[in-house]
Amino acid sequence: MLKVPDHQVAGHEGHDGMLGPLIDDSGHFYKPLQDDDRGSNEVAFYKSFSSNTQIPDHVRRFFPIFYGTRLIEASDGSGLHPHLVLQDTVSSHLNPSIMDIKIGSRTWYPQASEDYIQKCLKKDRDSTSIALGFRISGLQVHGSQESETWKPDKKLVKKFTAKDVRLVLRKFVSSNTSVDTGMDPDCSFASTVYGGSAGILAQLLELKKWFEDQTIYHFYSCSVLMVYDKESVVKERNSGAEVKLVDFAHVLEGKGVIDHNFLGGLCSLIKFITDILSCSDEYEEAKASLQDPDKNCNCTD
Amino acid sequence: MLKVPDHQVAGHEGHDGMLGPLIDDSGHFYKPLQDDDRGSNEVAFYKSFSSNTQIPDHVRRFFPIFYGTRLIEASDGSGLHPHLVLQDTVSSHLNPSIMDIKIGSRTWYPQASEDYIQKCLKKDRDSTSIALGFRISGLQVHGSQESETWKPDKKLVKKFTAKDVRLVLRKFVSSNTSVDTGMDPDCSFASTVYGGSAGILAQLLELKKWFEDQTIYHFYSCSVLMVYDKESVVKERNSGAEVKLVDFAHVLEGKGVIDHNFLGGLCSLIKFITDILSCSDEYEEAKASLQDPDKNCNCTD
Repeated sequence: MLKVPDHQVAGHEGHDGMLGPLIDDSGHFYKPLQDDDRGSNEVAFYKSFSSNTQIPDHVRRFFPIFYGTRLIEASDGSGLHPHLVLQDTVSSHLNPSIMDIKIGSRTWYPQASEDYIQKCLKKDRDSTSIALGFRISGLQVHGSQESETWKPDKKLVKKFTAKDVRLVLRKFVSSNTSVDTGMDPDCSFASTVYGGSAGILAQLLELKKWFEDQTIYHFYSCSVLMVYDKESVVKERNSGAEVKLVDFAHVLEGKGVIDHNFLGGLCSLIKFITDILSCSDEYEEAKASLQDPDKNCNCTD
Repeated sequence: MLKVPDHQVAGHEGHDGMLGPLIDDSGHFYKPLQDDDRGSNEVAFYKSFSSNTQIPDHVRRFFPIFYGTRLIEASDGSGLHPHLVLQDTVSSHLNPSIMDIKIGSRTWYPQASEDYIQKCLKKDRDSTSIALGFRISGLQVHGSQESETWKPDKKLVKKFTAKDVRLVLRKFVSSNTSVDTGMDPDCSFASTVYGGSAGILAQLLELKKWFEDQTIYHFYSCSVLMVYDKESVVKERNSGAEVKLVDFAHVLEGKGVIDHNFLGGLCSLIKFITDILSCSDEYEEAKASLQDPDKNCNCTD
């Protein structure tokens, strides 16, 4: 039984009879192949990547497992349509907080058509991509109650400034974010979700190490997906935080050169998260020493 | 007594009555201030940088020392003109081999005029900047005899492809490069110039570490200058290799964000040099074990 996923934060959605991804009960994610080159490019990437013996296992875990392609009934009711069959990295989480971050200050590549280049360039300039080396494409954050979810509208996300991005990355790991109260996010989950040996920062640093050396692929318009469970954080002090790379419709051959565009953006994201962690560490220390227990972390710029 | 420097490889030259830099006998480099914003921007940067207490000494050494500005007779004979007075990093070398590498896949910034952006974007696309994250702006390499110098014409340098860049970075540390014979560069100085604890790679890695964290400045259209003495390499097995950053007419405030554009390009250059070193190591090992003494290092792609 296939259904439209509950937790999609970016990309084309399959609601209201539109063509979008589907999931099943056994952890598979069905992504409809786009009709143009993008569909065949993404299949080609997954085929190349899954058979490439040069990819170490500690890097492979950052990519969804590829199960091939399959013709299935499309979510828009238009009949059989080819889909990528992938590991569903989100649905294994009960109430996942998710952020989709498109990495790279440049989403275009010289081989593309002039039209496509100009379209991408405009989006890169209108968003935070040029300034920060990445932009947020979508997110949802679960509040303290199950019913509370903050999932800003796509139009709002598109308008995020550098300041918004810093705030949203803090809200993502805060317990007081569900309603837009203008309250300063408390970053109380930062050390569990971003920090620690299995946290998001550690995973991003692992990925960075690979990107400093790998010259096989260049990832344009590719996203880092950050996922964690708020329940797990609260109950077990273990967030199950996961980093995954997704969207490979614009992957090119590296031809012996590193992906400096992706790497630069990744390093910028890492710095944002490091800043939040050191800020929340200071807060924790302050709280522990009881010098200023009500002091909120406000490293907002 | 001021004179036109012998060893300029990029930028406006002061020959034939043109406005260009001058040097004196006491190690000063006089750079004429450009009339537009670029001149005042560069002065502002040097003033800010030299008084900034957040810059650690091991990073400061990568920047020319700033001695202020001075009105001196311009090299084009047009009368008194304001000049930046800087440390002359090149003239202390007897027969310096020099390369000027403009770092970053993007030399423009959103605050610039649309005209300037389009001009830079075209140059970035026409050169290796987009593909490699850097482009070579100029170079000179000394051959085994003092009279032999390879200093390719600016027009030729502008046309360098990714493949040319890889070759030129190898020629830069080879003993058989003086004449364009099409001979495979032997990379015989690679381990001394690029390698070692004081070599160029070690210096670039030091710089990289700073760029992963510093959010004070963004360096657009800024160059890494690599300088060494072939004589020193041959005689002393110590190349006196130096890395300097130069050209700060387009430095902007970092505003809490790392310079992901510079960092990405720097990491790409580091990878190129690492590749040359591991290739020349293999060659040295092969030579040492005498298995294949005449094998030339030909990791050319």
